[in-house]
Amino acid sequence: MRLLIDMDDVLADTGAKILDVFNQRNGLQLEKSFFEDKHFYEYIKGHNSYRDALYEPGFFRDIKVFPDAIDVVKELNEKFEVYIVSAATEFPLSLTEKMEWLDEHFPFISWRNRVFCGDKSIVHGDIMIDDHARNFENFSGRKILFHSMHNTQVQGYERVKSWREIRDLIGCAGKE
Amino acid sequence: MRLLIDMDDVLADTGAKILDVFNQRNGLQLEKSFFEDKHFYEYIKGHNSYRDALYEPGFFRDIKVFPDAIDVVKELNEKFEVYIVSAATEFPLSLTEKMEWLDEHFPFISWRNRVFCGDKSIVHGDIMIDDHARNFENFSGRKILFHSMHNTQVQGYERVKSWREIRDLIGCAGKE
Repeated sequence: MRLLIDMDDVLADTGAKILDVFNQRNGLQLEKSFFEDKHFYEYIKGHNSYRDALYEPGFFRDIKVFPDAIDVVKELNEKFEVYIVSAATEFPLSLTEKMEWLDEHFPFISWRNRVFCGDKSIVHGDIMIDDHARNFENFSGRKILFHSMHNTQVQGYERVKSWREIRDLIGCAGKE
Repeated sequence: MRLLIDMDDVLADTGAKILDVFNQRNGLQLEKSFFEDKHFYEYIKGHNSYRDALYEPGFFRDIKVFPDAIDVVKELNEKFEVYIVSAATEFPLSLTEKMEWLDEHFPFISWRNRVFCGDKSIVHGDIMIDDHARNFENFSGRKILFHSMHNTQVQGYERVKSWREIRDLIGCAGKE
């Protein structure tokens, strides 16, 4: 079975860095939990944007790994054909940085199993773990939404909040 | 219909640059035509390798575009859902260079339609144009082999030698 795992806001806590930039630019001190009952993209419309920071050199290089992500992906990699699939071509400088980041934290995922694309409808597999529901639209396999401050109001998908939950949910589903 | 187009030795004349490096390192003056009746990979085994040059900064940035590639891809892009799919993650520095190269020569192919991967079995589509038969192995669509000095001895595939030939072959097959 082929398992497709997203990077930003699934393996990497990109949201934490984005929120830091957003807070700095707006003189705020919001925490992720603030968005548990709000539409993130609606809320930020009335504020200074963080978007251009994503195009700056180095933005994606030092993002923190989510707790347990390394251990659980290592386990799943024994059971599934794991591919890391990141919608990254919008940010050209991020590509080499993301390779370095994966080399540092997930060296057991070979370059053969890394995909950087724009529109994810081009990839296929059996299970997709992603934080953006738009990536599920043309995906025929099982869809698992990774909880994130920007998707708290999204409904209709199996949702996980941690890598431990993912282990419990699909840890035994590989090797089929 | 979704058309997947490779970069190296399909859009970009990577083989010409590789042969330059190979000739320099071996005191030779071979031309591509030398390999028309030989197995390229067998021949080079007894010589100094060009491989490490592929990992050097800048290698992929100034490669020449094949004749007519820009015009024909522009035409096909009106008829097909065109994706550029490059097995590039083996060469991390190439990723940003390949984005810049596409921005320069194929700006009409959006970042949304660019894919950099390792193993191409992860992508799906209706037609694939590639110079490596290994990329056809798990592909269920139509396979078109782009003639290259390293695949002259490969048999069993529809083969094209130029972008004009591709236009003649599939130019009318889009919009289905």
